[in-house]
Amino acid sequence: MAKKKPTILVVNDDGITAPGIKVLLEEMQKIGDVVVVAPDSPQSGMGHAITIGRPLRLDKIDLYAGVEMYKCSGTPVDCVKLAVNKIFKGKKPDLCVSGVNHGLNYSINVLYSGTMSAAVEGAIEDIPSIGFSLDDFSHQADFSHCRPYIRAIAEQVLENGLQKATLLNVNFPHHSKEIKGIKICRQATAKWFEEFDERVDPYEREYFWMTGKFQLLDKGEDTDVFALSNGYVSVVPTQFDMTAHHAITDLNSWTFNVANAK
Amino acid sequence: MAKKKPTILVVNDDGITAPGIKVLLEEMQKIGDVVVVAPDSPQSGMGHAITIGRPLRLDKIDLYAGVEMYKCSGTPVDCVKLAVNKIFKGKKPDLCVSGVNHGLNYSINVLYSGTMSAAVEGAIEDIPSIGFSLDDFSHQADFSHCRPYIRAIAEQVLENGLQKATLLNVNFPHHSKEIKGIKICRQATAKWFEEFDERVDPYEREYFWMTGKFQLLDKGEDTDVFALSNGYVSVVPTQFDMTAHHAITDLNSWTFNVANAK
Repeated sequence: MAKKKPTILVVNDDGITAPGIKVLLEEMQKIGDVVVVAPDSPQSGMGHAITIGRPLRLDKIDLYAGVEMYKCSGTPVDCVKLAVNKIFKGKKPDLCVSGVNHGLNYSINVLYSGTMSAAVEGAIEDIPSIGFSLDDFSHQADFSHCRPYIRAIAEQVLENGLQKATLLNVNFPHHSKEIKGIKICRQATAKWFEEFDERVDPYEREYFWMTGKFQLLDKGEDTDVFALSNGYVSVVPTQFDMTAHHAITDLNSWTFNVANAK
Repeated sequence: MAKKKPTILVVNDDGITAPGIKVLLEEMQKIGDVVVVAPDSPQSGMGHAITIGRPLRLDKIDLYAGVEMYKCSGTPVDCVKLAVNKIFKGKKPDLCVSGVNHGLNYSINVLYSGTMSAAVEGAIEDIPSIGFSLDDFSHQADFSHCRPYIRAIAEQVLENGLQKATLLNVNFPHHSKEIKGIKICRQATAKWFEEFDERVDPYEREYFWMTGKFQLLDKGEDTDVFALSNGYVSVVPTQFDMTAHHAITDLNSWTFNVANAK
């Protein structure tokens, strides 16, 4: 008996017309039945935002022949929620893949990234989920070297499943680098040092453009940043339990002077 | 010699005019020098979103006598970034407090909450940070029972500091409940079951309002949800390392068939 093809939800944060999502849906079509739900406009940096004060639109569109696609007026997380509820109607897909993002989502970027938040939402929905990102911000980024890895990683996740309440954060080196292989990593400690470009508008009012520099604060050789800078595809198992379990004992030794504060 | 008063950054996600932030700044004024930076409009559900495609505004306003306050056109996380860079100018505050949120941010809500994301951003900036939230969505919520706890918890954090790369997620029971004390907890496993209220606009186009029901998937008695439902203030130590460290060994045993996928 032929094995039933898996159903695969494809999402992103760069918007439905981004080249990165086309690469991802094409690779997924080789292994499953694909449904694409993506924002109707770029949603980079949206993190885990959801739309609660405004109504949402979800419209079927024909962008690529033979692909079931929907554009959504909301955030990447909204896309996953609408897909699960209004398209799959509770019969969950076998896999949720997000990306391929134009730009890296390693290290601390996992928090800011709409691509990764969509994958996190997939995992919250108990769907094996993977976020893919490439070290190239450009619209014309070359994703060709990512293709075999995307499929190999997706196939392994479909075959093995993922541990409960975890997902994968996958980042690819730039096309100009030769890929040495895949490394399982931890999220590197890092932060963005913001710089605000200060300007004055035509009405004499001040405004800012946020820019920033990524600063690595981690010398570990087991991090995603280290792996990528050495030519590997980084794979970080990611979880959404944000409890700092190791800090509980310490906090239990504290005495809160609530009476004194009254 | 008199001890120098700590400097305290106060932020929120309900917007600068929300009653919850007034409660928080009033309590912080009793123990430190306060600077308030908050969104100029409600930003609930914004998660860790940042503003990268649009310019930002930051304007000083006189809302309450004697309080240094700024309203910001961006997200809660933008507020923290602008405060650190443009107001404190690198001389970081001793404490960052966010809230008090009108509505609970326990369990999985830590991911969606702008209140908590602002506190997370404070922690990324290496500032001891706390998010406070109340079990009452109403604009007229009664926060009086929270006041002594807010101050007692902030004082302990100023005195003891927090472990590297951790912050606190504090949630208060509704005013109608008698508070039994403070419990250090872990984040409960739960999810939102969305319901999309389907409507048709005057132009015959379909749209959705997202609503949902919180569903607890955790029987533990060490969770924030359990503590709150039993009349305790819940305190969850929270971290932004999202690595699922326990899953690394398992993933290292996988074989990725990259050659076959080419």
